[in-house]
Amino acid sequence: MSFKTIVIIGGGFGGVAAARALRTAKNCKIQLIDRRNFHLFQPLLYQVAMAGLNPSDIAIPLRRLFTRQKNIQITLAEVDRVDLANRKIMYDGVWHGFDYLILACGSKHFYFGNDDWENHAPGLKTIEQATEIRRRVLIAFEQAEKQTDPLAREKLLTFVIVGGGPTGVELAGAIAEMASRTLYKDYRNADLSKTKVVLVEAGPRILAAFPPKLSQVAAIYLHRLGVEVLTNARASELNGECLRVGDRLIATHTIIWAAGVKPSSLNNTVATEKDPQGRILVNSDLSVPGHAGVFVIGDQAAFKNERGEFLPGIAPVAIQQGRYVGRLILNQLRGSGAREPFRYSDKGIMATIGRTKAVVSLGSLQFSGFVAWLTWVFVHIVYLMRFRNRVFVFLQWVWSYFKFGHGARLIVHKTWRFYSGEKIRN
Amino acid sequence: MSFKTIVIIGGGFGGVAAARALRTAKNCKIQLIDRRNFHLFQPLLYQVAMAGLNPSDIAIPLRRLFTRQKNIQITLAEVDRVDLANRKIMYDGVWHGFDYLILACGSKHFYFGNDDWENHAPGLKTIEQATEIRRRVLIAFEQAEKQTDPLAREKLLTFVIVGGGPTGVELAGAIAEMASRTLYKDYRNADLSKTKVVLVEAGPRILAAFPPKLSQVAAIYLHRLGVEVLTNARASELNGECLRVGDRLIATHTIIWAAGVKPSSLNNTVATEKDPQGRILVNSDLSVPGHAGVFVIGDQAAFKNERGEFLPGIAPVAIQQGRYVGRLILNQLRGSGAREPFRYSDKGIMATIGRTKAVVSLGSLQFSGFVAWLTWVFVHIVYLMRFRNRVFVFLQWVWSYFKFGHGARLIVHKTWRFYSGEKIRN
Repeated sequence: MSFKTIVIIGGGFGGVAAARALRTAKNCKIQLIDRRNFHLFQPLLYQVAMAGLNPSDIAIPLRRLFTRQKNIQITLAEVDRVDLANRKIMYDGVWHGFDYLILACGSKHFYFGNDDWENHAPGLKTIEQATEIRRRVLIAFEQAEKQTDPLAREKLLTFVIVGGGPTGVELAGAIAEMASRTLYKDYRNADLSKTKVVLVEAGPRILAAFPPKLSQVAAIYLHRLGVEVLTNARASELNGECLRVGDRLIATHTIIWAAGVKPSSLNNTVATEKDPQGRILVNSDLSVPGHAGVFVIGDQAAFKNERGEFLPGIAPVAIQQGRYVGRLILNQLRGSGAREPFRYSDKGIMATIGRTKAVVSLGSLQFSGFVAWLTWVFVHIVYLMRFRNRVFVFLQWVWSYFKFGHGARLIVHKTWRFYSGEKIRN
Repeated sequence: MSFKTIVIIGGGFGGVAAARALRTAKNCKIQLIDRRNFHLFQPLLYQVAMAGLNPSDIAIPLRRLFTRQKNIQITLAEVDRVDLANRKIMYDGVWHGFDYLILACGSKHFYFGNDDWENHAPGLKTIEQATEIRRRVLIAFEQAEKQTDPLAREKLLTFVIVGGGPTGVELAGAIAEMASRTLYKDYRNADLSKTKVVLVEAGPRILAAFPPKLSQVAAIYLHRLGVEVLTNARASELNGECLRVGDRLIATHTIIWAAGVKPSSLNNTVATEKDPQGRILVNSDLSVPGHAGVFVIGDQAAFKNERGEFLPGIAPVAIQQGRYVGRLILNQLRGSGAREPFRYSDKGIMATIGRTKAVVSLGSLQFSGFVAWLTWVFVHIVYLMRFRNRVFVFLQWVWSYFKFGHGARLIVHKTWRFYSGEKIRN
């Protein structure tokens, strides 16, 4: 049995799961490559954007994650090209060979061709985007406090979220709640209870991945929080001043993008068949057709399940696929060629609305309200349990739950002069 | 008694103390202006730079600080000019009048005329600078892990701190300890125990403000942590590659500036006498000569005590001066013209070296070692007790003290491509 080189690109849910599954692998070099030095728990990213959590509460250094797993080598690098034919990848301007390759680079925001929208409507995929959204929301409140013209103030207190998926719903609920339940008492001039949050969904209902009943419930919860939900509504134009939805022109300074995603641009360098969204079409064992040693998992892959449906781009899928591929390679290293097809076991989906409500769909079982919220918290805590930060996240939640506090409410990394963008004098 | 407008510029130690002292003031408008939306506990900023604490552990939103003190109005703005003669200040391009003015804008780094050094040797005054220093240190370790050439690696593992005051000493100790006690086990190729930290002090000894005995003790502690201390050594040239100290040329990618400071540039717009460093010379009641209603406190002021010595730019001075001026104005509002001269009661000074040692000087009482470190922790906790974050800071300290963890070890807000500075593709 010869020495093998296994390369994993991407330290997200899929890549980390694959690396862990290989913990007992011997006589091989396992290299985990990421351009960031941390693994991010994206499902809670919106709480960083809403100043409820610190970045380090939901991000853990990859090296810390694998301190004890000595067969993993972590490389901080950005992979520029993949050469399937010659089994090579390029980073830092040099080609590096591999025997097995796992592509787990995830996805990024997609503005349906309007890339210029990104400046006006940041998405929520990275820590930087989360802190940028936090900054914009808080600065809007600050500007409103200084603003004396009622219309200008109303515009500043209007927030639009594009995309009615879990992220959009969670953001909409959080902004409405933060303004009316937490921050309002800290402002002397602006009446934050007048904050208007609009959630724009192109489809007929929000939370389209959920059963219709739960979509309705979620819409009701949002309505109670004062969120206006627009369905069958597509954002056709937007800038830093306003947004067009159908024939309606909404005046706002703060737009957040939670709509489309597309796979990592690395896919463009992979010479194989893709689906219309650019995801790599994979075999039943997640390998790339014609390349038994190359696997694609998570948002980067287009995988059809037994019922011929494409699996959604959610954490559980990436985790199960990573674990599957890790074990498959482990068997290969041990000389077994057997390749059972990958099967996704659906653990259900959930979304939270504000600090006391959620909707949960577990196969036939569906429920909502406070119990669903507790379920949501429990599931997320359990996942974070693996992380060092668990204690603090939990305490911080408990604390801010009772205090209604948003302690991470700091405007950093840009001047508060949002519109002019001038540099701070220091 | 007529309605008065009191303006406080700066939400640091001095400004906040003044605002608090005015909590019972009536029939007046008190406006606290800061260009940031938070108060920063600067003495612990180095722990943010060393990934030991999160920004929000040591920063608290000004609005939260004054939620209950209803007579304070907070304005997020940057003041551009002060017109003493006409009792006006300008911000957002508009002049605003005042009856009483408290200048508490603090100081910023001074590169002795070499302003271009700032890019290569960031200082440690703001949250952004702290996270930038964190980023540079962590990236140096990552580059070292990838680097195969031993000399290049040694250069990457060399860190130079310019300035042997408390901040410089604390940073030097923290970097050395972090590398050799925490991070070393997370790197497979680079031997972080080979990390070299050099502390460069222009004067004859580090911690010049302390008694010579304690300077010696601190130097010994640093030596034990593997820090090389250079005294009577002035940095004459530096860039991103190396630094000249006397006739010695130190090869390093990471230089941190902890040497000179100068008062806020706002002083340039204040038409009154300054000392050579640009600090405003104030009367015994901290008022500006000829302007009984205008006061300057903290790093921005040059105040001579009874013994004719200028007070140092440290938090206790700013706090006591703020409290003094607040009370003075309170008396004025109540019709009393009495103005006792300000007297600074010296509560002593302390500096910590690594996670178990410190030096403390309380007048005639001087001690060092673990007890001094406990004293240091106690004093800082007590101060932070006023803050919502106290619980987490304390827990985080206890935790990382036992875990030797640096959980906030995230490289964010710039691409990891340190040298090329290319944008991340996402």
